[in-house]
Amino acid sequence: MAATIKPRLPRGMRDILPQQMIHRQYVMDVIREIFERFGYEPLSTPSVELRETLTGKYGPDAERMMYHVSRKGGKENLALRYDLSVPLSRVVAMHRDLHKPFKRYQMSPVWRGERPGKGRYREFYQCDVDTVGTSTVLADAELLMITHDILDRLGFREFVMKINNRKILTGIGQFAGVPDDLLGGLYRSIDKLDKIGLEGVREELSANEIPAEAIGRLLELLQVTGDSEAVLQELEERLGDFPAALEGIEELQEVLAYLTDMGIPPDRYQVDFAMVRGLDYYTGPIFETVVEEPRVGSICGGGRYDELIGTFSDTSFPATGISFGIERIIDVMAELHMFPPEVGVTKTQVLVTIFDEAHVGTSLQVSNELRSGGLNTEQYFENDPLGDQIRYALKRGIPYVIIVGPDEATAGKVTIRNLALKEQRLVDRDTMVDHIEDWEGNRQE
Amino acid sequence: MAATIKPRLPRGMRDILPQQMIHRQYVMDVIREIFERFGYEPLSTPSVELRETLTGKYGPDAERMMYHVSRKGGKENLALRYDLSVPLSRVVAMHRDLHKPFKRYQMSPVWRGERPGKGRYREFYQCDVDTVGTSTVLADAELLMITHDILDRLGFREFVMKINNRKILTGIGQFAGVPDDLLGGLYRSIDKLDKIGLEGVREELSANEIPAEAIGRLLELLQVTGDSEAVLQELEERLGDFPAALEGIEELQEVLAYLTDMGIPPDRYQVDFAMVRGLDYYTGPIFETVVEEPRVGSICGGGRYDELIGTFSDTSFPATGISFGIERIIDVMAELHMFPPEVGVTKTQVLVTIFDEAHVGTSLQVSNELRSGGLNTEQYFENDPLGDQIRYALKRGIPYVIIVGPDEATAGKVTIRNLALKEQRLVDRDTMVDHIEDWEGNRQE
Repeated sequence: MAATIKPRLPRGMRDILPQQMIHRQYVMDVIREIFERFGYEPLSTPSVELRETLTGKYGPDAERMMYHVSRKGGKENLALRYDLSVPLSRVVAMHRDLHKPFKRYQMSPVWRGERPGKGRYREFYQCDVDTVGTSTVLADAELLMITHDILDRLGFREFVMKINNRKILTGIGQFAGVPDDLLGGLYRSIDKLDKIGLEGVREELSANEIPAEAIGRLLELLQVTGDSEAVLQELEERLGDFPAALEGIEELQEVLAYLTDMGIPPDRYQVDFAMVRGLDYYTGPIFETVVEEPRVGSICGGGRYDELIGTFSDTSFPATGISFGIERIIDVMAELHMFPPEVGVTKTQVLVTIFDEAHVGTSLQVSNELRSGGLNTEQYFENDPLGDQIRYALKRGIPYVIIVGPDEATAGKVTIRNLALKEQRLVDRDTMVDHIEDWEGNRQE
Repeated sequence: MAATIKPRLPRGMRDILPQQMIHRQYVMDVIREIFERFGYEPLSTPSVELRETLTGKYGPDAERMMYHVSRKGGKENLALRYDLSVPLSRVVAMHRDLHKPFKRYQMSPVWRGERPGKGRYREFYQCDVDTVGTSTVLADAELLMITHDILDRLGFREFVMKINNRKILTGIGQFAGVPDDLLGGLYRSIDKLDKIGLEGVREELSANEIPAEAIGRLLELLQVTGDSEAVLQELEERLGDFPAALEGIEELQEVLAYLTDMGIPPDRYQVDFAMVRGLDYYTGPIFETVVEEPRVGSICGGGRYDELIGTFSDTSFPATGISFGIERIIDVMAELHMFPPEVGVTKTQVLVTIFDEAHVGTSLQVSNELRSGGLNTEQYFENDPLGDQIRYALKRGIPYVIIVGPDEATAGKVTIRNLALKEQRLVDRDTMVDHIEDWEGNRQE
């Protein structure tokens, strides 16, 4: 054995202890249930990909944050996956016989060497849902429906799904007359409109050597506001001469029509043509959902990436998807006590105590019977004083304690103590499950 | 975008496509349910650990198989986790306020650069359940009960939980008079008894320079067989002069008594003192469960490791745990068609077709209503000929198809086609969920 070392975690990494894990499992179970409710199928890809699979997909900032993986004597250049879209694209390119559309979800960790901060970890889960093999924006609209259903089900009441289209952004670049090599900077500046305001954007654009005349046109455009239909109408009038913009606008008009058909309340979404998603691979509609009250920011984003699969294959497939950042969702839900009461501090329902050495066997049998009856049951292991065993249950938040001493054992009975109500019942052993279910039923009413 | 590259996977890594994932989720859900049924709580640790956390724990062979992780400009020496026991030990050492006993489970991938082979992957899941903070072998016995319940529930009918104790192995080394530095080789040879037989073990021991007299004593010992109690009895007579062996034998006698109390059939377990677990950190009872018919080998192993946490802390805590290798379990279950019929090829129950452009909105509403009724429902996206849409459902294995044309829409009805029975019903839209549930109910009876 090695000498004692101080136990530490890598920077930006963390352990998730049981109470947090119970919260996490609740959120992930809801998301998985809704993904499946919409007919998406589970997929898993390895955490470790060939480095060549990942490079050239996300842009240079991302590549600096990527983790490399190696092994003594290993000959492959490997990396930890950075998102779930590029691995999905690789899967689709490799498995040509997958039925199309291929509607899949994946809930897996990804790794990014970002500066750690509140709610920002270097290993974090993404919950992605994507459709591969269809160009219709009905697939895009469905992603917004899924987003709506998940956030609604989790109890978020104030959120806005921002909708834009990369084609509109291309049109805006053409409209302003900004040369191609400055487009990246242009988009980054526009994206900050919410944070730095119109004047801030003007300063950034100047600093980025965007011509003054272009800046003037852009700032005028950025002042277009109103409900989603009105914004698209106004954009159509101003950008109608630019085919890319027009195509993007028409796609979003179709998306809006589907959202109405689906019955999504109109205050839940907003066309926001200053919203830019960072990753390089988007080609069509893009989405970002922001929880506004409280101001937690973006918890879900995605969009269409029709060219990405083509980087792995001679035929590309159109694709669109969305990704939920559950770390932030869980943190916010915990802060605001948004978990329903049945998501408790433990999933264990009963603690079976040990009365004395002679009755260990009886306790083990009682535990078995409780488990067969469907109750999550912990068997206490030590022959400690009964008070210590009960205090352990209280500390763990286990609601029921069972005591089987010599009197109970002889009579075929057990004592059940309900710790919340501070009541206890001496009951026939073969009715103990019913008694606990009875108490539980009353509690949940 | 990067130029086209051939899509490939790293050696020994794999994608898990939807049908396999549905099998996998079934197995993992059963295991998780049973872990929770016994009162264990979920824990998650990062995939990436500091390298110093992992080194010196598993032995030199393991360290050669470990994956290192790095990032441009990163200053930490990192590695992918190799198992879940060492990270658990680190967690317990870091979080001193965790209640004891700390009973936790974790279901996560680990990485080992082993030679890839059938059912052997370089990234694979371990499902671990451990108790930290108690020395009583009741905790060890409970692990066997959990193993029994999981394998029984998954439908394995022929398996044996082999039980040994590191203390008995220590005693055997003392009994044979083998010097300490040769003990490793001794254990490795004994461990192969099942595979290479007594003569094979004799040759290996000679090759390892074990003295001839010691080999003689060992081979005589290795011929002790019989039921578990008889084997322990015989060992007690032969090794009774060696305190380590005696302690190990008494612990196993206590374990056997608990297994009887718990009602585990005696043909499900066997004391096998030639069973050695490879990892360095075990100190007490060790377990390995072998599925014998068909001969799939070890699918679950573990044991007591009372000193491991002490490598991270000035106080150690006794600990014991067991790990399920689900990859092999899933492969075997698929090969032998052990999945219950309700674990189908898809979780999607209904496909809602598109009749024509004019009725997309109605289809979207019908999909919504089916989902609200609890049915997993895929909305078809394209306005393809109806025959194509139905063929898609057949290909995907989706059992029900809904058609809403102009007649249905006007009458507030839908047509449901049951693809398995080749029946269809024209029903009121507000009863469609009931009709499908009715069909499903009949199917499962």
